Amino acid sequence: MMPPVVIKSETLAATINLNRQERVPLYQQLYFEIRERILGGDLPPGSGLPPTRQLAQALGVARVTVTEAYAQLEAEGFVTSRRGAGTFVAVGLTLAGEETAASSTVRAGAPPLTLSAWGERVMGLRPSANLPPTRPDIDFGFGRSFPHIFPYDIWRRLLDRYLSTDDVMLSRYGSVAGFFPLRQALADYLGQWRGVRCTAEQVVIVNGAQQALDILTRLYLSPGDEVLVESPGYAQAFAVFRLFGAALRPLPVDDHGFPVELIPAGSRARLVFVTPSNQFPRGGALSLPRRLALLAWAQTHGAFIVEDDYDGELRYEGRPFTALQGLDDDGRVVYLGTFSKVLFPALRLSYVVLPPDMVTPFVQAKGVVDRGAPTLTQAAVADFITEGHFERHLRHLRQAYGQRRQVLVEGLDAHLGDKVRFSHTPAGLHVMLYLPEGAAKTAVVETAVVAQAAAAGVGVYPGAPYHLHTPAPPSILLGFSGLTEEEIAEGVRRLAAVL
Amino acid sequence: MMPPVVIKSETLAATINLNRQERVPLYQQLYFEIRERILGGDLPPGSGLPPTRQLAQALGVARVTVTEAYAQLEAEGFVTSRRGAGTFVAVGLTLAGEETAASSTVRAGAPPLTLSAWGERVMGLRPSANLPPTRPDIDFGFGRSFPHIFPYDIWRRLLDRYLSTDDVMLSRYGSVAGFFPLRQALADYLGQWRGVRCTAEQVVIVNGAQQALDILTRLYLSPGDEVLVESPGYAQAFAVFRLFGAALRPLPVDDHGFPVELIPAGSRARLVFVTPSNQFPRGGALSLPRRLALLAWAQTHGAFIVEDDYDGELRYEGRPFTALQGLDDDGRVVYLGTFSKVLFPALRLSYVVLPPDMVTPFVQAKGVVDRGAPTLTQAAVADFITEGHFERHLRHLRQAYGQRRQVLVEGLDAHLGDKVRFSHTPAGLHVMLYLPEGAAKTAVVETAVVAQAAAAGVGVYPGAPYHLHTPAPPSILLGFSGLTEEEIAEGVRRLAAVL
Repeated sequence: MMPPVVIKSETLAATINLNRQERVPLYQQLYFEIRERILGGDLPPGSGLPPTRQLAQALGVARVTVTEAYAQLEAEGFVTSRRGAGTFVAVGLTLAGEETAASSTVRAGAPPLTLSAWGERVMGLRPSANLPPTRPDIDFGFGRSFPHIFPYDIWRRLLDRYLSTDDVMLSRYGSVAGFFPLRQALADYLGQWRGVRCTAEQVVIVNGAQQALDILTRLYLSPGDEVLVESPGYAQAFAVFRLFGAALRPLPVDDHGFPVELIPAGSRARLVFVTPSNQFPRGGALSLPRRLALLAWAQTHGAFIVEDDYDGELRYEGRPFTALQGLDDDGRVVYLGTFSKVLFPALRLSYVVLPPDMVTPFVQAKGVVDRGAPTLTQAAVADFITEGHFERHLRHLRQAYGQRRQVLVEGLDAHLGDKVRFSHTPAGLHVMLYLPEGAAKTAVVETAVVAQAAAAGVGVYPGAPYHLHTPAPPSILLGFSGLTEEEIAEGVRRLAAVL
Repeated sequence: MMPPVVIKSETLAATINLNRQERVPLYQQLYFEIRERILGGDLPPGSGLPPTRQLAQALGVARVTVTEAYAQLEAEGFVTSRRGAGTFVAVGLTLAGEETAASSTVRAGAPPLTLSAWGERVMGLRPSANLPPTRPDIDFGFGRSFPHIFPYDIWRRLLDRYLSTDDVMLSRYGSVAGFFPLRQALADYLGQWRGVRCTAEQVVIVNGAQQALDILTRLYLSPGDEVLVESPGYAQAFAVFRLFGAALRPLPVDDHGFPVELIPAGSRARLVFVTPSNQFPRGGALSLPRRLALLAWAQTHGAFIVEDDYDGELRYEGRPFTALQGLDDDGRVVYLGTFSKVLFPALRLSYVVLPPDMVTPFVQAKGVVDRGAPTLTQAAVADFITEGHFERHLRHLRQAYGQRRQVLVEGLDAHLGDKVRFSHTPAGLHVMLYLPEGAAKTAVVETAVVAQAAAAGVGVYPGAPYHLHTPAPPSILLGFSGLTEEEIAEGVRRLAAVL
């Protein structure tokens, strides 16, 4: 057997770059450098590395630096060392550098990763671009809260309470279904203020309403099943149902919400997705006769209803409407609520109230696909509710957003009253403006208005993605929750000038 | 037409319970009470409610209380009011109280909600019971961190920084793929310390590794597809694959991890799930020849590899092993990392490093099923890393956990050295003990040991759920990350006494 070639320390050192300014220790940099030479084929299998003392000298580093680099190379199998003989590049490794004819063929012919049918549907979705390319002066974006309106000082105090005193809670995985005191606080709050009838066990904390829809769809639907939805409606929910492979059956909403009486007699829908408190995005509440008829329909047809109460608390005259869930005697309604609108969006915390039969399947499924929401946040929200901060904050929000909405509505009535239609229901965080219908296609009209508004420094958003029935009337959405009253008034004036 | 019957105020008041101690305002309580009477049929359709002044007098409340309750009832459609004539229960509502023969039949025959095939699989899973029924004195549970080890004071300071100064960030939805500075900090850290080669764009923040697996499975697999897994292996990942309907093909691991050479020649597996840095739960690292062979196999077969590096940082002698991902030249490896083990479990924050081709599908899918992780937490983690706290904390953890592991291993060697086998690789947060094999069935042996240990006040966990090959050798898991050194030593003594 030929004695192995030992690489000269100067030869190796000349190829190695060490950077003393980096935070990564020198021995680790040296490990990566030598490893690269091995994987690249510059240090062939079986060749000997220079003795540690010589390489250290050549590199101008401490000997321990080289010793530790060699040790890591050996631990990971890149080199072997034989006592008294030295350190040698491992043999028998199939390295990228030494492609044979066979392996080249394999590489060239390596099958690419292919997407599943679900993956293809994902790629077919329009990415949800909620941000304009250039930030306008006045952005009527929605799905945001007004900065400086949330009592962050109280929030900080609540977080500090747990971060200072009870970190045992933080050092374990939390309950999949959610932090129990928060579930209890929600059951109490929802019963007292939203007319929801449930126990704490029926409340499950989720990382956003989307997650709840994703799990519910998989638990109770099969691809091809029909889902009845509102049009216009909540596009993010449409995306979940579409990804799943459900068949969306849109019904056109009017001032009183989802037209139950238009459900086709032969419909075999398994799920109805509705926004009864404040129809999204058109506005208006589901009427009581329709509520009762919808519950009766679901019962007769073995379907279930998802009630998305995304901003039911935000009604600015009279009391918030109570939930559809409270009228359900048959375990057909899943109630979805979120803190995104009433605390702050970056919190990413929502909840679902499930009929008793659905709790175990839902929690078991959630336990597999996601092991639960962050405990600290849940604990802080629980205290925020039980200590009265939430009610106080809601009153504050209703006043602040109610005034902003009034400025918007008055501006629209004054400047555009003869050109646009919109729901005057005093609720929610945006207004959907229906534009005059003309000869041009909806998409053309909306794109033109959005572009003209943008040129005037105003961000408005096209309504077409929310409409499933065609031809959709041209419309734009104006969110007001991120703007001051002055910005809103100015934004409307600029919009009126271009319309 | 008959004039409507007007209910007497005393008659109605006698059925109504108001509680002045409750936080819910009286008018809202009154609204719920009258609503119940209407829905229950006690106040029939068309009947007149008492005049507000009379009912207020009969109830002993202010008139405005009744006026507001009536207003909410009217807003929601339970009553109608005719100026000068009074307030009347709405007609034409199909109420639960007045079941006709037909609706009774419907109710009796109402189809129940049925679970999908996925739902049935969910119900077939064992619920993940990580907690013993009674808390033992000394609980060798795993998946927890030691309380008081995390620098919560620093954490609080980082959170406060954002809560005090930049709440604009919190008032919007964050980026689906994650807070960019955190993605950049991770790309830098992973490159320098774990040998992962990636850009910040390839790093996506997820709410736990389970979520990443759930999305990847749906994107790239079809039900029935094969998934190669380690046995014993990570049971939570098995659950995701099983739910999806994948066919699990377990290969028995040895001291050098996943036996690539045992992959059947005709295998059509699309995905290989491995834990190369520290095989879970057996211990030991995937050898370099197997790493290279696995990459070559995946390339040849058009499969991809998920590298779950759940605790790769926690190696107590020498350096942590570098990642398999860093050896991949063909975009076949998805790297999963988590902060659960190295920060704290209740944080619920993980990350995935995707091959470039997989980034867009993954992020689009995540945008539909979950709109992103909480921004505040991500911002704090980003600063925790870039300001050097993370490296310091890791050094601290390695020392603290390394000592605990040593106490455990020395205790096991001293008291049970002749009875049990386990990996002596100095890594991880638990030890898997293989028990003597005898005539009895594995499940029987494990159940007996767990019960005997529990009787001695020691919590240990059966190994069977992690094994997919049969017969699985009897084993138990001992996590040490939640215990003091004294508790560990005492726990081993007690365990030795019962074994």
